[in-house]
Amino acid sequence: MYDPTKPYIPEIKRLIQTTWDTKYLKVDYRGVLRKSNAHGVEWRHTDGIGTKGENHWRKRTFAAAVQDALANSLNDAARDRATPFEICSHHFFPCDDYEAIIEVQSHLARHCQARDIAITGGETAIHEGSKGLEISITMLGIKRSLEANQFRDGDVLIGIGSSGAHSNGFTQIHSVYHDWESLPDDITTPTLIYYDVIDSVDRIVGIHGMTNITGGVFTKMKEQLGAHNAYIHRRHTLTPHPIFWEMLARGVSEGGMYCTFNCGIGFVIGVDPNVVNISLKIIREQFNADVIGEVKSGSGIVRIESMFSHNIVTY
Amino acid sequence: MYDPTKPYIPEIKRLIQTTWDTKYLKVDYRGVLRKSNAHGVEWRHTDGIGTKGENHWRKRTFAAAVQDALANSLNDAARDRATPFEICSHHFFPCDDYEAIIEVQSHLARHCQARDIAITGGETAIHEGSKGLEISITMLGIKRSLEANQFRDGDVLIGIGSSGAHSNGFTQIHSVYHDWESLPDDITTPTLIYYDVIDSVDRIVGIHGMTNITGGVFTKMKEQLGAHNAYIHRRHTLTPHPIFWEMLARGVSEGGMYCTFNCGIGFVIGVDPNVVNISLKIIREQFNADVIGEVKSGSGIVRIESMFSHNIVTY
Repeated sequence: MYDPTKPYIPEIKRLIQTTWDTKYLKVDYRGVLRKSNAHGVEWRHTDGIGTKGENHWRKRTFAAAVQDALANSLNDAARDRATPFEICSHHFFPCDDYEAIIEVQSHLARHCQARDIAITGGETAIHEGSKGLEISITMLGIKRSLEANQFRDGDVLIGIGSSGAHSNGFTQIHSVYHDWESLPDDITTPTLIYYDVIDSVDRIVGIHGMTNITGGVFTKMKEQLGAHNAYIHRRHTLTPHPIFWEMLARGVSEGGMYCTFNCGIGFVIGVDPNVVNISLKIIREQFNADVIGEVKSGSGIVRIESMFSHNIVTY
Repeated sequence: MYDPTKPYIPEIKRLIQTTWDTKYLKVDYRGVLRKSNAHGVEWRHTDGIGTKGENHWRKRTFAAAVQDALANSLNDAARDRATPFEICSHHFFPCDDYEAIIEVQSHLARHCQARDIAITGGETAIHEGSKGLEISITMLGIKRSLEANQFRDGDVLIGIGSSGAHSNGFTQIHSVYHDWESLPDDITTPTLIYYDVIDSVDRIVGIHGMTNITGGVFTKMKEQLGAHNAYIHRRHTLTPHPIFWEMLARGVSEGGMYCTFNCGIGFVIGVDPNVVNISLKIIREQFNADVIGEVKSGSGIVRIESMFSHNIVTY
């Protein structure tokens, strides 16, 4: 909780203030004033980094922790066609670690400055003896479009490569690895931020449906299928990272893999066949991407050819 | 993290939706629309319940936990002369406890309905094996007035009684009580919500300075003193609760008491001597309140006659 005698309070205030004058907002201690381009239907989003925070805390990978937190909100902003311009954040630490507290706040301020996002509220809470760090971000913005995401008959599904487990499935990862030392070194690799490429592609080609492959992963596509099925094949280059093979080897079923882990694909968009090439060209400037399937009339089923075997997984 | 297969997801959505049509906002899955009375200089606030969440978790006092979380934000809204109309909240649980998750969300929805506050975002995160519950709320609103809080020469200080430790000082409480069983039963009594009486008093008499006695407690008055001192005497009826005497008996210094614990006073306002009686009358309809001191010209010092002895504590 707030303690005005803590040495980090003035430094946190200084860092936050570096984000206070953006093209959307003007912030001071009296309140938040919106500029003329910050009006419209508003968008809100709250998310954290979950139990991956235990890994970040142990390895002190604070830059990656902040990227995970921001990516979770920014990628959902991309999906919802929202322009984010403001965050409030709650930082949960297992001890009163000056260096960690300031490092988290510095990375957050740096990302926000670069994205014209003002930090307008926050709290640093010390929960002595907890297992890990949690960073929960409430992101605010306006909707760029009220278009609903809906996959259409004939859509080509494009997948964008992930960087590993991102920040999902860590409770399961922790339950099958019985000691921290055996976890792979790259387990703290941060979630990729797809916001910018998705925003570009959508403005240029008009994406029909899109799914941020986080908790629930491929099952989440069902929400946008209506009277269609999604068919995801295995003839693509977005191969699962070693951590996913390891989870399978340690006993997770293939069905379980595709509803808990991204299995190599961090974001899925459905576009008209005519715009597949231009979409891939834009996305590949920053990430691996490939055609992973198609949408056909059906009844809301997601059918996946597993990348781990020749089995079929259906949701 | 989000898992669409969890049985509580539809129930959480249903509860949240009961708050979506208020006199300030109209919310749906596409976004948040403001009504005409929800424009102005905006106000944001993020706060949690801190390590008191460990007590609420052990005793399953979820209604009190939600009141603590809301009180921390609402009482700061009162101090900042803001009208809150929206929250996003992050709920951190030590295990996937359906009953607890739904109970927290139900109490939150009930309070928000009663106060015309829409719940526009949120996340329920399970951190297996953690020590307690955390509820962090980001509250949004508009400023009713841009008047700055500043105690003035001759102000009479009115204190409003607390219900106990509220949600501050729990790290210290936990460090001196060596087992949970010895903690007093009323340790989970929730923080009182002063929002409504402070709002009324300010509209009627015009409060000069006011301090929400949370983290940092009486030291926070210094921020609003300028070239004045605050003198808090011991000739008032807001006596310390047993938990405070116990903390003193267990070794906390009197100086430490008045910068960590509210010691019986949850909120302090400074008003013109002419409006003391009307202010007390309004506040006493709901809470204990009394004159606790005065403001005189000085140099930003808070001088407290301890309620625990005849010592003087100075900040």
